[in-house]
Parts: sequence; structure tokens; C-alpha cells
Amino acid sequence: MAQKVEKGLFITFEGPEGCGKSTQSRRICEELRAEGYDVIHTVEPGGTSLGQNIRALLLEKESIELSRKAEILLFETDRAQHVEQIIVPALLEGKIVICDRYNTATFAYQGYGLGADMEFIKKIDDAVTGGLEPHLTVLMDIDVETGLKRAGNTGVADRMEKRDLKFHEKVRAGYLDLAEKYPKRIRVIKVNDGIDEVYGLVRKQVYDIVERYKRSE
Amino acid sequence: MAQKVEKGLFITFEGPEGCGKSTQSRRICEELRAEGYDVIHTVEPGGTSLGQNIRALLLEKESIELSRKAEILLFETDRAQHVEQIIVPALLEGKIVICDRYNTATFAYQGYGLGADMEFIKKIDDAVTGGLEPHLTVLMDIDVETGLKRAGNTGVADRMEKRDLKFHEKVRAGYLDLAEKYPKRIRVIKVNDGIDEVYGLVRKQVYDIVERYKRSE
Repeated sequence: MAQKVEKGLFITFEGPEGCGKSTQSRRICEELRAEGYDVIHTVEPGGTSLGQNIRALLLEKESIELSRKAEILLFETDRAQHVEQIIVPALLEGKIVICDRYNTATFAYQGYGLGADMEFIKKIDDAVTGGLEPHLTVLMDIDVETGLKRAGNTGVADRMEKRDLKFHEKVRAGYLDLAEKYPKRIRVIKVNDGIDEVYGLVRKQVYDIVERYKRSE
Repeated sequence: MAQKVEKGLFITFEGPEGCGKSTQSRRICEELRAEGYDVIHTVEPGGTSLGQNIRALLLEKESIELSRKAEILLFETDRAQHVEQIIVPALLEGKIVICDRYNTATFAYQGYGLGADMEFIKKIDDAVTGGLEPHLTVLMDIDVETGLKRAGNTGVADRMEKRDLKFHEKVRAGYLDLAEKYPKRIRVIKVNDGIDEVYGLVRKQVYDIVERYKRSE
């Protein structure tokens, strides 16, 4: 089932609520584009038309009862469509694909956060992604309370954000645990300083891999 | 992963478009209820609140691009919620659960009909259902053109019904192939005669298993 895409560069941004990944990932996209790289920026859930419908279901319709398995499967359905329709075609064209959240989020939120069966997630995710892993995952780590405060300022709290503090602590710990397990792929950036300092760290990680990719072409 | 529910009786109705399974399954429910059995009638997709949202996505929103994997996963998400929220709790209370479509439909429509990877379906479905299989599946077999004409008369054609004749022929052939593979569980009823004659055949199959279940209690 292993899906190897030999071309392109696949970079994902992960982290707890309010870590600022969307701001940072958009900024690095702009810089790369300005330098002439062919870059697409996308997001999970919601990177396709199907995904936007699923995102609405997942995050907004709180009245809908959702079992753990069903929640995982909705994210994975979004991912299946996203991988097939957006990510793989862009990689095959040699593009840099920068994506806010990908499968590491499912392990962190539903696995570590909700305590869902990791084997179940792994089985479904492997079948869905065909083993397609990012070349680099930038994990933006932030203190949970600070993050939630920041997230709360950006709009209406969604299904995930409304879960309790303990849930978000488990998600954060899960992310850090995954970073320890996959130190080559997942690079942790601590979000303590100002937005520009954090961007400097993001930039370094991304350019490291972009330079390596350029040399290998 | 095998999920064995020792109580209750799980009966599903399957068949191509327009085979009349919903009419027949509702009628047998009423008869069983009139005799004092505790029966629930449910349906896939759409047996839960989540399922109704998924059903709308799957069947009505034709503008949404849907890969084969994503289509399978949407049905399986509906199933995960349905099994957990409706089917298993009812079986645990010793009820008879009668359901229009279940996992055999996914193999027939997406596997045989669309030519999706059977191994992918099997892997996801096993994880989702935990191996929960019906005690009896009534497969109502009907000539494709006749069925589509009948289905067309009942309302607006949905995503499935709008697929071409060849697709529906493959679905029908797939159903019959599955019935050959699982002759003990899947019983084929030919829909040639009038509604009452067909009901007589349905009734016989259902009462056979209900009587056996009663004796085993």
C-alpha cells in the first residue's frame, strides 16, 4: 500500500489550537513563491469541496452525536479526497505542498486526546494515505492556556476548541511524544517569542529541506 | 476485532435500486411488532443524525467531487455511528434490528459496481463493524431496467441512481456473487411477482430465523 511520490516536497504544519500555524505556513508560502518556487497552500480538514462540507459537520454542528470511530473516519474521508485530488497531483507536478494539519493531527487529537484506539487510527490512516508521509512536519508547540486564549480571539470556538483543558493537554503531550518518536520528520518549534522570532525558526526548518530537495533534483 | 453480540437478531435487506426492500422490510416489521416482538427498523445511510448529513452529501450533492476511497469512507463513517449508536445497543437489549442496506451494499456498489479495491473496503469495513454481521440478509433481486424504472417513480434520482446501466448491472451481478459466497447468510428473493407474493417469500425467510432465535433463547 506504500504510496511513494518521487517528485515534489510535502511539508505539514501541526500544533495545538492557537499555535499560529496558519499564519506561519502562509508566510513561508509567500516567501517561497516570491523566490520563484511553485507552492500550494492547503488545509485539513477542508482542502476540497467535500472537505469543506465535512469540516462544517465536524467543527460546527455540535448537536450531531459523533462516536470516536465516526469522528476519525470523517477526518480520514476528508484526507482521502484531499490526498487524491490535491496533494498527490501537486507533488507529481514537482510542487511544494504546504498543508496545515495532516495525519499527525489525527493521532494527536483523536488518539492521544480522546483516547481512541491507535491501532484503529493506524489501520484506517495507512489505507487512506497509502503511506504518504510529509518530508517535514513543523510542530509548533505552545502552552495550552495561552493557545486557547489566542484561538478564542480569532472567531467562534469550534467542537475541538470547546473540549476541556485536559483534552488539550493530552493533545499537546501527544504531539510532543510523536515528535520524539519521529525526530527526523517532526521538528518542534517553541512558540514563546514574537511572531517574527518564531518565523525565523520556521524559515530555517523549511529552507533546510527545500535546499536539500533542490540539490537532489 | 470480532464484535460478537450474543443477544438480539440482526436482519438486513439488500438489493439493487427499485427492488422494493424498504416496502417489504417495513411490512415485516409491522407484522413482527403486531405479534409482540420488539423490533426496530433502520436504514443505511441515514440511520442517525450524522448519517442524515452524510446521506445528503452522498446522494444529493452531485457537484462535490468524490474519489472512490472517499465515497467508501463516507458510507463507512455512517456505518460506524449507526452500529455504535443504534444497532449494537438495540441488539444488546434483545431486539430484532431490521436494516435497509448494510455492509453488503458497500461491497456490491463500490466494490463490484465502481471497481474499487475490495481489500480496501474489507479492511475499513472490518475495522468499522468490528466483524458484526447480520444473522440474515434478504437480497431482493430485480432486473435492472425494471428496478430503475420503479426507483425513478418514487422521487428524484440520486447520485447512485444516475449512474449508468452498466454500473447497475455490475451491482446486481455483485450482489448475486456475494449470495453465492455466503449462501447461509444471504437469501435471494426474485422480485418477479406481485408485492404480496414477494412478501410471502420475505416472510418465510424472516420467520425461519425468528423461530430459530426464539427456540435458542
